[in-house]
Amino acid sequence: MSNATFSEIAQALREHNSFIIMSHVRPDGDAIGSQLALGHALEEMGKTVHYINEDGLPENLAFLPHSDRIVQPQGEELDVEVAIALDCATKPRLGDNALKAASKAKLWINMDHHKSNPGYGDLNFIDSSSPATGQILYNFITAEGLPLSDVTRDSIYVAVSTDTGSFQYSGTTVETYEMAADLVRRGLDVGGINAKTYDSHPYRRVELTRRLLNTLEMADDGRLADWRLVYKTQEELGLKPEDSEGLIDMIRAIQGVEIAVFFEELQDGQIRVSMRSKNKAVDVCEVAKMFGGGGHTLAAGIRTEGTLEGVREQVLAELRKRLDACA
Amino acid sequence: MSNATFSEIAQALREHNSFIIMSHVRPDGDAIGSQLALGHALEEMGKTVHYINEDGLPENLAFLPHSDRIVQPQGEELDVEVAIALDCATKPRLGDNALKAASKAKLWINMDHHKSNPGYGDLNFIDSSSPATGQILYNFITAEGLPLSDVTRDSIYVAVSTDTGSFQYSGTTVETYEMAADLVRRGLDVGGINAKTYDSHPYRRVELTRRLLNTLEMADDGRLADWRLVYKTQEELGLKPEDSEGLIDMIRAIQGVEIAVFFEELQDGQIRVSMRSKNKAVDVCEVAKMFGGGGHTLAAGIRTEGTLEGVREQVLAELRKRLDACA
Repeated sequence: MSNATFSEIAQALREHNSFIIMSHVRPDGDAIGSQLALGHALEEMGKTVHYINEDGLPENLAFLPHSDRIVQPQGEELDVEVAIALDCATKPRLGDNALKAASKAKLWINMDHHKSNPGYGDLNFIDSSSPATGQILYNFITAEGLPLSDVTRDSIYVAVSTDTGSFQYSGTTVETYEMAADLVRRGLDVGGINAKTYDSHPYRRVELTRRLLNTLEMADDGRLADWRLVYKTQEELGLKPEDSEGLIDMIRAIQGVEIAVFFEELQDGQIRVSMRSKNKAVDVCEVAKMFGGGGHTLAAGIRTEGTLEGVREQVLAELRKRLDACA
Repeated sequence: MSNATFSEIAQALREHNSFIIMSHVRPDGDAIGSQLALGHALEEMGKTVHYINEDGLPENLAFLPHSDRIVQPQGEELDVEVAIALDCATKPRLGDNALKAASKAKLWINMDHHKSNPGYGDLNFIDSSSPATGQILYNFITAEGLPLSDVTRDSIYVAVSTDTGSFQYSGTTVETYEMAADLVRRGLDVGGINAKTYDSHPYRRVELTRRLLNTLEMADDGRLADWRLVYKTQEELGLKPEDSEGLIDMIRAIQGVEIAVFFEELQDGQIRVSMRSKNKAVDVCEVAKMFGGGGHTLAAGIRTEGTLEGVREQVLAELRKRLDACA
């Protein structure tokens, strides 16, 4: 797979009139922000745009302008010429209903920053050196002189800010900060948009944090931290999938902790395990694989049958073994 | 008071050889970062520099390169020609021992971004449009061609990042992001320095968060949130002053909360109250003044005699009255 050029992609956008724009299931800020950023540029060019996401718009991103246009596919086949997949590493991760909605498209465009993206479009632009798909879109839109409306500006900022942990992660580049400077120059309300992005949680998320902290256990001289969530608590608090997003960072950030683990009982009785490692010598992906899961060296997950306590005991025993081996 | 020019200040630095650099008591990232940033530039120019802070170096900033040079004054009068106060709104906030250490200085330089700074130096540079003193120093150092070593680079970044909530607060400007871009261009390790700044808390801070959350109370239909800390808990956990820094933001960020309050029993038996408002119609400074405190419309504090429960009852009653008046 080789990348198309920005001008080839821009040409394709100009030559067509109807578009479906999609992103990955369980969408985050970069997914939704990218959909809105490019979609609104197309609308400003007079095109018809359908914003489809398999799981719809998460409540915590509903502050984004124009986000009410993001809808869940209802099993219909949309009459569109072009399908655009953004920030989505594989085609199946767009979701079955979204794929059905896009099935009449004659041309597929695929823009992403995930290294593992195989390039499933007719025109692909994959740049894993970019910390967010939103940053690729900023480069694309400014290079090709496409419209950069207030909606596009705010959406790009939120896409990049959320995917870089507010300009903190190692993928953040000179271009990322220069882009932010330019967006402020274009009128972005920095204080306002960040307050909406980061300083506005439903009460249930704080209550969830409290419940989780009350189950926190430290082992192996503080090198291993874990907390857990039973399904009953999720029901009681009326939790949504995005409510627990990022909370594991709170225990990963404890000084001395090398492995942080989150055990969660799901509605179907399965157990989900999220693991984070700060020690490259302890590959949590290897442990995940032993239980049928997968991921990366420093961040991996499992979804398995069993009881919360049973799975917890087994996984922690395996992690302790590996921690002790590199003590 | 009118500002000196950057070149007048640079001239004064070049003409002298021995310096004491100070900042405010209970120093934060902008205070310590500014001291190290300018101090190391002077050292690179061959000058002798004493880095003095009344309260010493907080543990959470000990990762900063060269920070072991920050010392508490021991009651001595240092043999220096020039005293430099950074990020410190008033002279007394430098601390009595720091002032004594600086007493032999013949020339005072005062650089700050606090609006209320009266200009207590012989040469002053106060710019309240800057979100951090670190950003003023960046402008100064680059404009005057002073040495910008790795120590200065990292210190400036941490100063500005911490004072802008990681580039989020409304004071963040085009220049802030452009500065960050330039510091990355100069070799800053973005991922590394942010991990040290934000992702490394002592366990006791997480335990403190747990204890605070367990006292969280919501009133007035979720418009008023408060939590409290008894002195016994602080002793039990071996808390340091910086451990509670910023924690109030967690409850301020709850959707629907307009006022967040933190009640804290101090070692001397006094009660400290921190208040945050998200509603400009509820001026927490007015309430603070009723109890002998002060601050700003949206962030104010009190230190008063009384019992934790007694002060809490009185302050919350006053806040509820004002909330109800603008319901």
